[in-house]
Amino acid sequence: MGELRERIKARTEENKDKLLDYLKLESVSAQKREIDETAAYVKNLLEAFGAEVEILSLADKPLAHPVVYGFIPAKEVNKPTLLIYNHYDVQPEDPVEEWQTRPFEPVEKDGAIFCRGVSDNKANLIARLNAIQLYLEDHDGLPINIKFLIEGEEEIGSVHIDDYLAQYQDKFAANACIWESGSKDGQGRLHMSAGMKGIAYFDLANQTADIDVHSSQAAIVDNAAWRLIQALASMKDAKNRVTIDGFYDLMEEPNQEARAYLDQVPFDPDALKEGLNLRTDFITDDLDYSEKEALYFYPTLTISGLDAGYQGDGAKTILPKSARAKLDVRLVPGYTPENVQKLLRDHLDSHGYADFDLDLIAAVKPFRTDLTDPFIDLMVQTGETIYGKGKVIITPNSPGTGPMQSFGHYLGVPIVGIGSEYRGSGAHAPNEHIRWEDFYDNIAHILGIIENFDQVNWAN
Amino acid sequence: MGELRERIKARTEENKDKLLDYLKLESVSAQKREIDETAAYVKNLLEAFGAEVEILSLADKPLAHPVVYGFIPAKEVNKPTLLIYNHYDVQPEDPVEEWQTRPFEPVEKDGAIFCRGVSDNKANLIARLNAIQLYLEDHDGLPINIKFLIEGEEEIGSVHIDDYLAQYQDKFAANACIWESGSKDGQGRLHMSAGMKGIAYFDLANQTADIDVHSSQAAIVDNAAWRLIQALASMKDAKNRVTIDGFYDLMEEPNQEARAYLDQVPFDPDALKEGLNLRTDFITDDLDYSEKEALYFYPTLTISGLDAGYQGDGAKTILPKSARAKLDVRLVPGYTPENVQKLLRDHLDSHGYADFDLDLIAAVKPFRTDLTDPFIDLMVQTGETIYGKGKVIITPNSPGTGPMQSFGHYLGVPIVGIGSEYRGSGAHAPNEHIRWEDFYDNIAHILGIIENFDQVNWAN
Repeated sequence: MGELRERIKARTEENKDKLLDYLKLESVSAQKREIDETAAYVKNLLEAFGAEVEILSLADKPLAHPVVYGFIPAKEVNKPTLLIYNHYDVQPEDPVEEWQTRPFEPVEKDGAIFCRGVSDNKANLIARLNAIQLYLEDHDGLPINIKFLIEGEEEIGSVHIDDYLAQYQDKFAANACIWESGSKDGQGRLHMSAGMKGIAYFDLANQTADIDVHSSQAAIVDNAAWRLIQALASMKDAKNRVTIDGFYDLMEEPNQEARAYLDQVPFDPDALKEGLNLRTDFITDDLDYSEKEALYFYPTLTISGLDAGYQGDGAKTILPKSARAKLDVRLVPGYTPENVQKLLRDHLDSHGYADFDLDLIAAVKPFRTDLTDPFIDLMVQTGETIYGKGKVIITPNSPGTGPMQSFGHYLGVPIVGIGSEYRGSGAHAPNEHIRWEDFYDNIAHILGIIENFDQVNWAN
Repeated sequence: MGELRERIKARTEENKDKLLDYLKLESVSAQKREIDETAAYVKNLLEAFGAEVEILSLADKPLAHPVVYGFIPAKEVNKPTLLIYNHYDVQPEDPVEEWQTRPFEPVEKDGAIFCRGVSDNKANLIARLNAIQLYLEDHDGLPINIKFLIEGEEEIGSVHIDDYLAQYQDKFAANACIWESGSKDGQGRLHMSAGMKGIAYFDLANQTADIDVHSSQAAIVDNAAWRLIQALASMKDAKNRVTIDGFYDLMEEPNQEARAYLDQVPFDPDALKEGLNLRTDFITDDLDYSEKEALYFYPTLTISGLDAGYQGDGAKTILPKSARAKLDVRLVPGYTPENVQKLLRDHLDSHGYADFDLDLIAAVKPFRTDLTDPFIDLMVQTGETIYGKGKVIITPNSPGTGPMQSFGHYLGVPIVGIGSEYRGSGAHAPNEHIRWEDFYDNIAHILGIIENFDQVNWAN
């Protein structure tokens, strides 16, 4: 292991310029900065590591950011295929004033490397390429086929991933997929997600008058803000249970494998509370399931924004003509954006709010890999070799949302995420960084996967 | 009457330049435009009509807009005193693009005169001065003392009126007060308010975290927007009754005079609904009192604004760290801003919202003139001579708010409002105007009050 570690470090040094040049590209998808340049860079990068590469586009959607497809075939025929998913786009660097270095100038210090996008998720692609090169140092070819899908819209909701997967379904066919990321916790345990919650995000709005009404009329005139409050209040009880008829009936009961894996997921409420700077207790006091179950297995219905009437300083005496809320619903298996939209619509209609507009403005289906799939064992076993026994954690699904379901749907693959991040990496935040030791661990993990992937009894 | 009408018209023509010059002054108090110039103009104006005038200020509040005090003594001693209240400030002229003429260039057309501030409330002062002059054409002095209080902050909430009345209480001593305005309805009936609702306006806010939390944590983490919704929903039931303990107990039952006058107040729900461009029905279906009683006799608790989290286009997936509402509470006799604040605070504290901030940011006490005061009869009888029997309406209090209570408190006077406006005058709106015929009626009404004021058996 010591010798391998030295080889990983040497390989990292040798390829470091490739990482640095990749990091310097300001590929902020929300602002369409250097998108084509970065896609071209990734093409060259994959080619430099021996892949056949194509930059894919969508004929009827010219504004879609390109997807980079790469393929390195196995030395022998009839070998299984591993699909590697990453994204070359990054979050905006705001707030710049909170960075201690320039956001797009990579800086190494204290055993870490700082740059926007290094943890989310540029370094992970370089780690995967380094692992392939390490394997090829000792062998004259790969034991498996490796494909790459590197997209440029992950940070804006992977808005065209379904189009790409539908159009290029055959090209991306694989036996399993390594997701973009995975993170170490405070105890050095690697958390690997085998699924993600989905989301249905709504604009909810109502209008009670053409113009704001003077609030002296409040005794008799209705008010869009009050109606919004009453409509929202009707959707949740004091125990924070959703009170929409049938809401919980949609939920697929987590199977025993999911429950068994969740049992092993560490959960420290106090650390989480502190990490989130909360001023309030968790809202799960009155639930008949645990906080951890709530977080991973249950759907949520929450409000991300309220907007009505006057919001400035002082007093403006109006009955707001209109009021809007942003509704964020997280989905677990059993839910789709569409069936949730129907439940909400029915609830509004039957509670006196038929006039409310309910627009679905973001929709991602939930996904949970079949946890009996042998790929799960492969990921755990190869991980334990690197991180230690009991130090790799499979979460049946992350509480967060991502486009895993699209891959599951179009490619039928099991999916697990691994990566070089840790809890303090600051994805989406100033001073984003990864620690080199985590990067080395990650490379070793991927190397183990490449070495053992062909041993798996692939059903699919 | 025909001869008087001709004299009123002639007087109006003769003094028209004084009105036009007054209108041209852009005395927008919210923007501190031409405030001192307009106060000086009013001083000269009152002097031109024979008053002794002082421009008053507050020694310890140099930013307070000046109040113009005027006094025309009765020819004889021991005569009662009528206080005339007006304001020289006006609303901002926005939206300018909706004006058909320039906002501060008076234009006469179709028997009306258009200008910002003409109805609210510059013409009314000129009408009152014209009436005085008409009386003096036939007499060698006034039968009563007349005082003027012309303020410059009415459109910004009369923020220093209490200071002025407290400091100059003796100067403004009077037997009765004519309020700034009164308006004709669609049937040509003059509505005169003998009172006004008060207001307690609050900022209500809560904070659940130092920074917004990712909404993937919604299953366990509380959310300032939800808490605000739940807190507000706890204050009102589905029938729009306020559910704060003791809220309605504060209300002084309207006496038989108030009920008798309210019976005569016309109320046309359909016309009101149409005039307000409402898309919803009135909220009074389930009340055990009428819409009219609700509007005039009942307190209200409403929301003028909601502000939490994300309000832009598209989706931002957060649990808002903080949420705020603007709470507008209209007060009738029995309520004060302070006793309402205590009820709200107690409600929040006892319902799990002790951490909410509740700041009182605007406060005006309610006022209702003693409706048995002989001044009421004087206003009705003199009004009926001009407008016709049954054509003058006393509202025990207006649903709106103004600083009447300050005058009642410091001066102990009965107060009734009359004026030259009509329902379509567009106070605070583009194309503000009054009709000349209404202006003439108003002058005649004031002349009648001057002639008959000394006949009243003044108790105070």
